Amino acid sequence: MADPKPINFTRGVPATESFPAAQLAIAAENALRNHSATILQYGPASGFLPMREWLAARYGVAVESVLCSNGSLQIVEFLGAALLAPGDAVFVEEPTYDRTLTTLRKAGARVVGIPLEADGPDIDALEQALRIHHPRFFYVIPDFQNPSGATCSRAKRERLVELARSHNFFLLEDCPYRSLRYSGQAEPALIELAPDVVLLMSSYSKLIGPGPRFGFAIGDAGLLQRIAKVAEDTYISPGLLAHGIVYEYCAAGYLEPQVERLLALYAPRLAATLAALDKHLPETAPTRPQGGFFLSLTLPEGVNTSDVRTAAALVGLNLADGRGFFSNGGGERFLRLPYCALSPVDLEEGIKRLAGVVHALQA
Amino acid sequence: MADPKPINFTRGVPATESFPAAQLAIAAENALRNHSATILQYGPASGFLPMREWLAARYGVAVESVLCSNGSLQIVEFLGAALLAPGDAVFVEEPTYDRTLTTLRKAGARVVGIPLEADGPDIDALEQALRIHHPRFFYVIPDFQNPSGATCSRAKRERLVELARSHNFFLLEDCPYRSLRYSGQAEPALIELAPDVVLLMSSYSKLIGPGPRFGFAIGDAGLLQRIAKVAEDTYISPGLLAHGIVYEYCAAGYLEPQVERLLALYAPRLAATLAALDKHLPETAPTRPQGGFFLSLTLPEGVNTSDVRTAAALVGLNLADGRGFFSNGGGERFLRLPYCALSPVDLEEGIKRLAGVVHALQA
Repeated sequence: MADPKPINFTRGVPATESFPAAQLAIAAENALRNHSATILQYGPASGFLPMREWLAARYGVAVESVLCSNGSLQIVEFLGAALLAPGDAVFVEEPTYDRTLTTLRKAGARVVGIPLEADGPDIDALEQALRIHHPRFFYVIPDFQNPSGATCSRAKRERLVELARSHNFFLLEDCPYRSLRYSGQAEPALIELAPDVVLLMSSYSKLIGPGPRFGFAIGDAGLLQRIAKVAEDTYISPGLLAHGIVYEYCAAGYLEPQVERLLALYAPRLAATLAALDKHLPETAPTRPQGGFFLSLTLPEGVNTSDVRTAAALVGLNLADGRGFFSNGGGERFLRLPYCALSPVDLEEGIKRLAGVVHALQA
Repeated sequence: MADPKPINFTRGVPATESFPAAQLAIAAENALRNHSATILQYGPASGFLPMREWLAARYGVAVESVLCSNGSLQIVEFLGAALLAPGDAVFVEEPTYDRTLTTLRKAGARVVGIPLEADGPDIDALEQALRIHHPRFFYVIPDFQNPSGATCSRAKRERLVELARSHNFFLLEDCPYRSLRYSGQAEPALIELAPDVVLLMSSYSKLIGPGPRFGFAIGDAGLLQRIAKVAEDTYISPGLLAHGIVYEYCAAGYLEPQVERLLALYAPRLAATLAALDKHLPETAPTRPQGGFFLSLTLPEGVNTSDVRTAAALVGLNLADGRGFFSNGGGERFLRLPYCALSPVDLEEGIKRLAGVVHALQA
């Protein structure tokens, strides 16, 4: 018998068929016609000025409040270098994005996890933690969280802001998935509620593609200047050629229709994943996000992700280790399912294989 | 009277008029037609495979011996994170590239400067230093060195290799200027002499332009894997869109004619700078490089760069602080002159202003 076709529920990658290659080629031609003297040269570490201006207009802030970078992950690293002394406390949601955990640890941060509920961080646990620790910031992904799929409620957003103000820390709001809402109503972004205590970071990796490495931060101009100094010492200037292409793409008005196409492409994939789970693994009670790239579930008692991963690999199903998303142990039964890069047929097949593995391990 | 036109001898930037914008636009179109599924997606931290293969063929090495990055400076950072413990010794030429000094210091290295002579590092001083320190590596720029303009002789290249082998350190050979030889004969690259003890790093920032942030390293596959792991934790993958464009540019055969154009553009600029110095400041005995971006000189006794910088700024002449290129003090009378981005007329005018300032301070 032939090996089964591999199905990867590993990383949160966009669908290849979503990439707007032809429009990016037009954007590249325009960027190289209009801006070659700038985008082929060294330039400011805070990024390509027209793109900063475009984002400033979009977010209703001054251009000094915008920094563009090579993807958004490195902003966490720069922030660590600019702000953190070894042992400084940083709060994260539990679970959270594993690469951010790695980056915070490299910066010497003392990472404190705040349990995440279906409607956002556990506020009682946060208040408890604030009695013990004084975090420099709280890293949160309020919309379609990675890895859980949870979205923070309006009430909890307001409490986060109040607590940030009263306890003198800021919220590092990571929101690359926010535009990808397939149903329901958006809550205000934290930065809309309280620009005084929020540094927003995002990227267009999930909207245009990761390859341009286009990320950005919006927030306090003084803090961004400190980040820019670290950025300059690290890479002199970000990838201005790619940023010029992203700028011409956005300036041409391509972004909004692209987001519409993504919604049409990804919404059925989320629906297919949930339908397959309801059919094959209803006992895992998966999160039911209204957007983004991920849903998550807790495996039945007595079954752990390690064993499931090992057995799943034998049937061509590749899964991520749930423990990687937890800052301080735990996650043995946690499973993240990134569904955007798989077709509905493969999603159904993948969940079927997953159910087979789980039920075999239970037997 | 109108303010004089500013003339910048500050950073080593390429001439704007050298940028091959039209050819890059063709390359971008080809890259997005041929490789969009790869260059718009996340990918390997070691870079875009076709470009690694292209470089592997050019350097006659296996593809595993090639890593592509966002510019070359960050390779020094990754190397520091992969290899250095705080306090580990690293040797550098004295003077050397100031951004590398900053990067090595951030990594916690104990930087030891080896005096640089007109024909390369002072070998006696190097042997002395090797009696005291055991460096992990010696960072050298053998061709048209930044900031001095010195090129390492064949004899010294061979001694460097012998000492690296006998003292168990490696040579980090930084060679972004090597192709830009305006006269004379090239010596073999260190990596050609001794691939067993050399990690080469370079970039196309000086050939195509800095904006694509295209850098690369060539050397031991195991070491490159360790660098790639740090790179992945830092930026997931490098700027694959830009690297795809650079690849199509190179694959189309545009690079060699571009280098020819650069030689034709920059050789007269070096000649104009030397002629102006011979006319206006012969007493400074500038280095007389046969290529690259920089020459350097030592100001007359009693005159220091700080005072010259301050006075020069008043006549629209902007200079870099010579002390920044020295790892452990010194450089008070050292002046680097990057000449590539200035026209021969501006170079003559700039040197005239410099001479006026120096002579006024001597009076």
